[in-house]
Amino acid sequence: MSQITEIKQHIAILQHLVHQKVMNLDLPEHPNRLYEPISYFMSIGGKRLRPVLALLAAELFGKEAATAMPSALAVELFHNFTLLHDDIMDKAPLRRGKQTVHEKYDANVAILSGDALMVLAYQQLLPADATQLPALLHEINKVALEVCEGQQYDMDFQDRERVTTEEYMRMIKLKTSVLLGAAMKMGAIQAGAHAADQQRAYDFGLYTGLAFQVQDDLLDVFGDPEKFGKKPGGDILANKNTYLRVKAMEIADQTTRVALNSWYAAPDSEAKVLEVTHLFRSLGIREMAEGEMQALLQRAFAALDGIESANEHAKAKLKAFAEYLIAREE
Amino acid sequence: MSQITEIKQHIAILQHLVHQKVMNLDLPEHPNRLYEPISYFMSIGGKRLRPVLALLAAELFGKEAATAMPSALAVELFHNFTLLHDDIMDKAPLRRGKQTVHEKYDANVAILSGDALMVLAYQQLLPADATQLPALLHEINKVALEVCEGQQYDMDFQDRERVTTEEYMRMIKLKTSVLLGAAMKMGAIQAGAHAADQQRAYDFGLYTGLAFQVQDDLLDVFGDPEKFGKKPGGDILANKNTYLRVKAMEIADQTTRVALNSWYAAPDSEAKVLEVTHLFRSLGIREMAEGEMQALLQRAFAALDGIESANEHAKAKLKAFAEYLIAREE
Repeated sequence: MSQITEIKQHIAILQHLVHQKVMNLDLPEHPNRLYEPISYFMSIGGKRLRPVLALLAAELFGKEAATAMPSALAVELFHNFTLLHDDIMDKAPLRRGKQTVHEKYDANVAILSGDALMVLAYQQLLPADATQLPALLHEINKVALEVCEGQQYDMDFQDRERVTTEEYMRMIKLKTSVLLGAAMKMGAIQAGAHAADQQRAYDFGLYTGLAFQVQDDLLDVFGDPEKFGKKPGGDILANKNTYLRVKAMEIADQTTRVALNSWYAAPDSEAKVLEVTHLFRSLGIREMAEGEMQALLQRAFAALDGIESANEHAKAKLKAFAEYLIAREE
Repeated sequence: MSQITEIKQHIAILQHLVHQKVMNLDLPEHPNRLYEPISYFMSIGGKRLRPVLALLAAELFGKEAATAMPSALAVELFHNFTLLHDDIMDKAPLRRGKQTVHEKYDANVAILSGDALMVLAYQQLLPADATQLPALLHEINKVALEVCEGQQYDMDFQDRERVTTEEYMRMIKLKTSVLLGAAMKMGAIQAGAHAADQQRAYDFGLYTGLAFQVQDDLLDVFGDPEKFGKKPGGDILANKNTYLRVKAMEIADQTTRVALNSWYAAPDSEAKVLEVTHLFRSLGIREMAEGEMQALLQRAFAALDGIESANEHAKAKLKAFAEYLIAREE
């Protein structure tokens, strides 16, 4: 069996392990309008990437994956809580192809069951070693506030005419990437890694998360629709701030900026997607974004390489996992 | 100085101490639509009763009040988080005479700043003694889920034709009283009380909370409008489930039940308040509620008396505080 096949199988086992735990949270039955939406939302899945990172971090430092299960579950439940509330704020009808909680029930149910889900996330930490609990609680509090900050910046930017690349990168860092960092760090804490290595583990997660987000923006426009599974240009039609858009606005001359702005202000059409894509191409945005993504991934790998105490095979697993994440839909 | 005056002064000092801490949380400045609503909401106040209970619990077991400050702040911030989100769910325009967060900003801001406020509540526990942190985290998670359950039952009951007294008492226990219990218990944990005494402290808070809620329902109908500061019958006009209403429906004969139901279904009028109040009187509901309230208060005091290790003066302070809470607006 090739190393890559072996790694993929290992990751599939970890995903399954987390998924089983998540599906068996043993929630109370009543009041059912509080707990049923939580079971529903947790069952519609996702790839359990963040908890797998926490488990891989435990292995990185020579411990059994399950050592980091409290962190893995806390991070996964927290992530789902943020999605549940973000869906209300974004008025999203669907999540992973299924009805969102506020659509299936109502906004009040979504607010309150989201709140309870956040509490359940904290509850997952209780089985952790008591001596590690202060560090774990500190970490989850810190990342939880950062994710709220990221969501607020994201909403603020929707009303703004102009967002710089730096602002955009800070927003996606807060909204999505720090949670990958925290998953790694919490796994490292539970594995007993020392502080400098915890930080390196965090950096690996953080930069992998940033690379993943830039890649996501790239795939929306330049991905192979066959493999990507959806029509290109969804972010353009949604007038979303993406790395491509903010970078283009930053480097374009006055004429091109005006053209971009007027296309973004135009109603949905095939021409809108084609013309914005054409402007991106003419500015060399694709190559810039690919360069940025590769640079972020290299920073992630460099952080990982800096962990001298870690096991080489486990490092290879994490690198393969990062590459799998990023290549996922190309 | 009489003992009662001394106790009142002491409580005022503790309220002030908590208030100062709450007003100096040292929140980040940005993003300001995340943190400013939190500062705003925390500044509109309240009496800081729950954190004062936590501080008095520390004194009960012979420790300085400030020993329990992490618990006091965690409970106070958590309580405000629940109010902030409840206001969205209840579409309440005002809280303590000021605009609610979703009115002053918007619903998204209220959802997200509420989420961040819950995280800040957990954050207050970090300075606690590391050996006590698992017990404190367990306690706050437990009460947090219970409060969510209570809010869900409250919303469920609004759509129900009939709620039993038992269901109503369980709902107010979950929605409001358990947090007073948890404040006492967490203060006791921080003061190093042993498990049986932690439970007695909890019971004192819980039954005081229940007595307080029954009294609140009583005052709405039978309170002195001069001292109570608002017109009687607000709960009747709002068609709220209260101890009086559910008890009346439980003991009334068929004819009286029909009369009560038709008055509750009627539009607002002075006659509605007068007639429902008259029906309550004819059923002896006032005396029943007063009896229930006194019985709950006696249970609270009995729990407190059972704490042999505690200091008598501190017990007297807690009893005086409970009586002050309950007598507050008569």
